[in-house]
Amino acid sequence: MLIVMNHKAGKKQIDAVTKAIGRLGFTAVPIPGSERTAIGVLGNRGYVDDSTVRDLPGVQEVIHVSKPYKLVSRDFHPRNTIVKVAGLEIGAGRRPVIIAGPCAVESEEQICETARAVKAAGADMLRGGAFKPRTGPHTFQGLKEEGLRLLALASRQTGLPFVTEVMSPETVHLVAGYADILQVGARNMQNFELLRELGKIRKPVLLKRGMSATIEEFLAAAEYILAEGNPAVILCERGIRTFETATRNTLDLAVVPLIREMTHLPILVDPSHATGRRMLVPPMAKAALVAGADGILLEVHPNPEKALSDGPQSLTPQGFARLMEEIGRLIAFLGSSGNDFREPKSA
Amino acid sequence: MLIVMNHKAGKKQIDAVTKAIGRLGFTAVPIPGSERTAIGVLGNRGYVDDSTVRDLPGVQEVIHVSKPYKLVSRDFHPRNTIVKVAGLEIGAGRRPVIIAGPCAVESEEQICETARAVKAAGADMLRGGAFKPRTGPHTFQGLKEEGLRLLALASRQTGLPFVTEVMSPETVHLVAGYADILQVGARNMQNFELLRELGKIRKPVLLKRGMSATIEEFLAAAEYILAEGNPAVILCERGIRTFETATRNTLDLAVVPLIREMTHLPILVDPSHATGRRMLVPPMAKAALVAGADGILLEVHPNPEKALSDGPQSLTPQGFARLMEEIGRLIAFLGSSGNDFREPKSA
Amino acid sequence: MLIVMNHKAGKKQIDAVTKAIGRLGFTAVPIPGSERTAIGVLGNRGYVDDSTVRDLPGVQEVIHVSKPYKLVSRDFHPRNTIVKVAGLEIGAGRRPVIIAGPCAVESEEQICETARAVKAAGADMLRGGAFKPRTGPHTFQGLKEEGLRLLALASRQTGLPFVTEVMSPETVHLVAGYADILQVGARNMQNFELLRELGKIRKPVLLKRGMSATIEEFLAAAEYILAEGNPAVILCERGIRTFETATRNTLDLAVVPLIREMTHLPILVDPSHATGRRMLVPPMAKAALVAGADGILLEVHPNPEKALSDGPQSLTPQGFARLMEEIGRLIAFLGSSGNDFREPKSA
Amino acid sequence: MLIVMNHKAGKKQIDAVTKAIGRLGFTAVPIPGSERTAIGVLGNRGYVDDSTVRDLPGVQEVIHVSKPYKLVSRDFHPRNTIVKVAGLEIGAGRRPVIIAGPCAVESEEQICETARAVKAAGADMLRGGAFKPRTGPHTFQGLKEEGLRLLALASRQTGLPFVTEVMSPETVHLVAGYADILQVGARNMQNFELLRELGKIRKPVLLKRGMSATIEEFLAAAEYILAEGNPAVILCERGIRTFETATRNTLDLAVVPLIREMTHLPILVDPSHATGRRMLVPPMAKAALVAGADGILLEVHPNPEKALSDGPQSLTPQGFARLMEEIGRLIAFLGSSGNDFREPKSA
Repeated sequence: MLIVMNHKAGKKQIDAVTKAIGRLGFTAVPIPGSERTAIGVLGNRGYVDDSTVRDLPGVQEVIHVSKPYKLVSRDFHPRNTIVKVAGLEIGAGRRPVIIAGPCAVESEEQICETARAVKAAGADMLRGGAFKPRTGPHTFQGLKEEGLRLLALASRQTGLPFVTEVMSPETVHLVAGYADILQVGARNMQNFELLRELGKIRKPVLLKRGMSATIEEFLAAAEYILAEGNPAVILCERGIRTFETATRNTLDLAVVPLIREMTHLPILVDPSHATGRRMLVPPMAKAALVAGADGILLEVHPNPEKALSDGPQSLTPQGFARLMEEIGRLIAFLGSSGNDFREPKSA
Repeated sequence: MLIVMNHKAGKKQIDAVTKAIGRLGFTAVPIPGSERTAIGVLGNRGYVDDSTVRDLPGVQEVIHVSKPYKLVSRDFHPRNTIVKVAGLEIGAGRRPVIIAGPCAVESEEQICETARAVKAAGADMLRGGAFKPRTGPHTFQGLKEEGLRLLALASRQTGLPFVTEVMSPETVHLVAGYADILQVGARNMQNFELLRELGKIRKPVLLKRGMSATIEEFLAAAEYILAEGNPAVILCERGIRTFETATRNTLDLAVVPLIREMTHLPILVDPSHATGRRMLVPPMAKAALVAGADGILLEVHPNPEKALSDGPQSLTPQGFARLMEEIGRLIAFLGSSGNDFREPKSA
Repeated sequence: MLIVMNHKAGKKQIDAVTKAIGRLGFTAVPIPGSERTAIGVLGNRGYVDDSTVRDLPGVQEVIHVSKPYKLVSRDFHPRNTIVKVAGLEIGAGRRPVIIAGPCAVESEEQICETARAVKAAGADMLRGGAFKPRTGPHTFQGLKEEGLRLLALASRQTGLPFVTEVMSPETVHLVAGYADILQVGARNMQNFELLRELGKIRKPVLLKRGMSATIEEFLAAAEYILAEGNPAVILCERGIRTFETATRNTLDLAVVPLIREMTHLPILVDPSHATGRRMLVPPMAKAALVAGADGILLEVHPNPEKALSDGPQSLTPQGFARLMEEIGRLIAFLGSSGNDFREPKSA
Repeated sequence: MLIVMNHKAGKKQIDAVTKAIGRLGFTAVPIPGSERTAIGVLGNRGYVDDSTVRDLPGVQEVIHVSKPYKLVSRDFHPRNTIVKVAGLEIGAGRRPVIIAGPCAVESEEQICETARAVKAAGADMLRGGAFKPRTGPHTFQGLKEEGLRLLALASRQTGLPFVTEVMSPETVHLVAGYADILQVGARNMQNFELLRELGKIRKPVLLKRGMSATIEEFLAAAEYILAEGNPAVILCERGIRTFETATRNTLDLAVVPLIREMTHLPILVDPSHATGRRMLVPPMAKAALVAGADGILLEVHPNPEKALSDGPQSLTPQGFARLMEEIGRLIAFLGSSGNDFREPKSA
């Protein structure tokens, strides 16, 4: 059980609640947050009668916790969250959003050329990494702030908003100063200090699923952001780590309809990182849309074999344009055939 | 290196080859097969010059092995294998095949009612288990031969051919006497004695991927069947075992386009076993078709909540009929939009 | 719920029980076994009052099932099962058993030389494969019955009993005619027809854990053997399949104390297959003994670099002798320091 | 290939190297570090002749990279790294270090009582969390700086140095002001900004393996810390995520001897987090020592059933004292029997 105090509640009111819980035979643990204090109740097994507590001064809400998340749950918030970015609506259940660009920003020429190409082919948004998390330290780590400036330049030239990764709490404000959406990479899904910091800003966050994160952990990570006050979270499935090594990761596409039952947040799919092989990207991109994804992230590089990272999974601009034609027809079909992008039905 | 002897090659010729290999400094190991002997060469690192061996009497072929399979490889046999069953063509790259029915045959009424329902909704083939592999021994293990008779009855009544599982070498002929396609379940994917026995019959085999089988192991299991002389093998992805427990298994849909590059054999998808949840079956069935599957297997039960096995993942006849309408439109779209069901292209 | 009928119970008594269950609103499913019929009860949620059923004629026992096993459970049979083989006692909680030998029997010289070497170093039992399950069909598959004869010869020469693998129901009697213990390999852990056949013989069975088998599935597989009447089952942990590829499998050593809480059956560990690397075998062998294993299986080959299978994980006879000295001291220490090999205590 | 520039090398020298690489037909990417610049070379396949580059002004070293790490490799630094902390030597190959304490610091009484108990039983160091990474935000997150003060108090009272977790780059200096060793938790193993920050301090770092991190990724994460100048890194295996749910994680004990071959850094084992069950901690602690671990981390709580986190896996002070007696005898045995704690031998 969790008792959420009013943000004006002071020490006296918190102490009174703590004592009341003690009288019930349980232990109370105050959990100070940035805006308000919550009081955890320990020692109970199963449901606790909260009548002696819920009317005490300063108590805002009593939550009977069973899951590590609540705010992200569809039970708590049945209607879809729609994230609005520069005129786009993600999660509105209509046209899925297509986000494309290189893994890493490498030069002005590379990012601007790619931006123009994906714009021409019909992409809705640009992606590209300025801060790059890499397995080892002796590898290209991104152009950092210079990369952000180049992304902003490519964005201005094309009118495409852009998403880029943020890797640490102290660079959140720097990245938020440039980007339209801030991405949390798979390796940082449980970097809770970063999540909390992102909960305090007013820009949307794209949260990628950790390599071995369960759906419950994925939603609990999103809960950290919502709990700090930022409701604009977009989830992204990007493959999980399994015993199979023929693909870079195993794309867990069944989570798309499953997550849409469990949460009101939009869910995207990244078939490039999930498969790691260019050839597998188009079929998985289309499969993701049919499974109900609110959009897809695709890696496109003007010269994949010279890319500083993730070349083997990047589409060429030509390949991307071909795929966009197929995707356009597929989306038109799904819309016309009465496919509801947002409400999975049980059969 | 593997030296395949002519099926008429006798002990004298085999000994001569063995000695020749010994003179090259390697070890020769005769591997007697049911029809011919192969001679494994051990001790070599990398490619071996085979000129002194390949022209010896009785030598049919010298194979430089790197993979544990060869006959199933597209390198060896570039054109698609098309498996023909009662007028259906599986793997021909046209209309995908829809196979539907209950997990287990329970009674005449149940199987016949289901067969009529799936036929009416447009299924191409019936499925149903007579021999059921179950985790523990104190659970319903199937109606065995009585189940085969009931499947045959339902098949005659509806004109639908049927596929059913075979669990041991000694029942292969019994099952082959009734079924149109014999299925090898995930738990038996590496039951090599069973695979060898199935290689000797003249009926198609549906081979399900093991719960933790790599693609290489999956193809090597199919190789056992082809190596004994039966070319009619159909592969089936049915989910793999991962850390995620929110779904029964993790459907690895990216293997569909990947396997089609690697092998000429058809590949089906079973979204019912893969997800274990009725709600997830329709989106995954459609995603499988878009990913390029040659067909899908679906569990349908007239009364899922009373099913003796796998009720939670079975569709009702009504749910199946609704899904078949959606699938029909999707297949028509995929056909008309120039989607090639058989040739994945690189982008 | 499972109703076990007396082995003399006839159709009339079974029908009476079936009807009684129907009157309770549930479905009864007779499950004929080789010696007696059990009746599964379906449709109940939670515990069912069995008073109207348990006294009917022919009912031997009513089992309220929650786990897929019962006979193997320590709840049901608190005292350790001790498997006796040629004077050895496995599971008695005293000296652990050391089983050593090559992966595969290759020749008379190889197996007899190895047997003499492991005997001299202090091994209790010989191991060696005559029927070899191999990923692909174009690899050495074992010497088959000739291999059994060579194992028996080596056994006679040294006085060591031997364990060897059986791969199919129809060869159970052949293998049982030679071997002291019959082994079920990891790939066949859920080959239920094979397990049932092994339940009918009167020789001990060494059951290896499947590559992706949960402990519950592992115990349920053992239950198949016990349910047919053979109580002499020895479990063996041999590594599970995970994302880590630096070792062949991941040795799950914590299952040793865990399994000893859950079941009365002995548990061995195979560090050779688990790690796949010679260098890791000695430390893991010793760790297994400290964790409480009832014994270990080790691969020893007179000439590992020329072994037809699994050379990289085989010890040389010299390496084995060195390890046996260390193991001897470790066992003496564990015995003298009051370490109880059989009763894990909670702390 | 990686070209490491002298820390005094300026833009002019870097440009000259960049151009030289361009003339070889490759792409040069400067990677600025906190102390010196490295230049990555891209576009090469296999080994590159470095003769035209290695003698240019400002070039300190040319590294032919194949692994994502180098500084942590035993190839590069054959002798064991010994981490010295308050008179203790970790990794010296003599007596393993025993670190014990509660999962989280909860109160002065709790941490001081635990510290006295583990000291009395023979522990070498105290552990306890002040900053706690928790799956969901509505759970006790630690006492933060107050927790650090209480740990320091308990440390002064007992003379035990202590290790505690740090979760973000900006709290590194705060935590370093109190703790003797700073811990990076499994969820932050690839929080590269945190690793870099820890590379700049002069206190030892205990790096826990990520839940799904390969050994290569684990060593590459340590490389981030060494690359910034801090050589005092201690590795810690704490279980990996697999399909098995009977234990909290799967303790991968074979990595202990494997890692000791690959790296010169010390390796500890945490059997409490690895198993999640009190009963499994003693056997796995002892198995870890036999496998060659340089020490173990154990959770001890005066009242496990009231612990705010991880109660089910915590030992009582009595259980810990009993285990320490067994461990004491085991260490004495391992020392006397000539067991070399640091040099795994091949057999």
